[in-house]
Amino acid sequence: MDVFDALFTRRSIRKFTTQFVSKDDENLILKAAMLAPSACNEQPWHFVCVRDAELRERLSHVSPYTHMAAEAPLVIVVCGDLSLEKAKGMWVQDCSAAIENILLAARGKNLGSVWCGIHPEKEREAKTREVLGIPDSVIPLAVISIGHPAQHFSEVSRFDKARIHRDKW
Amino acid sequence: MDVFDALFTRRSIRKFTTQFVSKDDENLILKAAMLAPSACNEQPWHFVCVRDAELRERLSHVSPYTHMAAEAPLVIVVCGDLSLEKAKGMWVQDCSAAIENILLAARGKNLGSVWCGIHPEKEREAKTREVLGIPDSVIPLAVISIGHPAQHFSEVSRFDKARIHRDKW
Repeated sequence: MDVFDALFTRRSIRKFTTQFVSKDDENLILKAAMLAPSACNEQPWHFVCVRDAELRERLSHVSPYTHMAAEAPLVIVVCGDLSLEKAKGMWVQDCSAAIENILLAARGKNLGSVWCGIHPEKEREAKTREVLGIPDSVIPLAVISIGHPAQHFSEVSRFDKARIHRDKW
Repeated sequence: MDVFDALFTRRSIRKFTTQFVSKDDENLILKAAMLAPSACNEQPWHFVCVRDAELRERLSHVSPYTHMAAEAPLVIVVCGDLSLEKAKGMWVQDCSAAIENILLAARGKNLGSVWCGIHPEKEREAKTREVLGIPDSVIPLAVISIGHPAQHFSEVSRFDKARIHRDKW
């Protein structure tokens, strides 16, 4: 798939078929995630790949927006490891770049995905941490549900000239 | 270009030729940026596109890492507008997804780019704000230098099984 087709037709997919996500696709997605840029190349990320149905059901309740985790065959919880930070305070940006690569790699394999934010909501962090046994030095940033889409990809228009400034604000 | 070629061969490019970046390419890059996902679809981003040589020279001094802004024909300063946030605290993730789309769209047009973090470093924020006249309610997140590369794209290996966890941490 052309990179611009992926960029322009990616959308949040919240309904999935029961079809399995292959390990090859999962590996491609994780490879793409780990090739994201990071401050001082610190790569402060961890990926908890959840396929177990009971754990996914529990993840569906860690935030008001993660309900689809119960149905998605693969859920990747992206976490930031503060002990790996070289440039303090940059881990959210690094891990967000990795997540965007996950979404685009999924699109490239015709898989649907949706990014549900956990950090900085403390209650969501605590619940996610408890379900997956994540240590205190690691912060769960987001829950990414992935599967074969039961919704259509489509290109929306969001180009807004009002957000573009020339040379100065 | 295939989306996986873009994902796997993107790297930080810090040296550029003097060749102009076309307005068509800039528009494609900004379109990709604005198609990033955001919390509650809040789209809290602004993009200051800097081509003026004097302003780029000044941006090259706003952080220890932005020196290439003086040579890059196009610099995009990505900002978060707190007044647009619907999901409080999520703007960094939203804008980081937009930045990753910028880098990948640039790669798709065989342009090089590099992401230099500004926020949360207060001194860098203040200097960037001063150069571009950015209002107080808007936070400059990063300086993205873009141009035709004077370095080669290449695929590095960063896949690290130790960062992957199965079902539980």
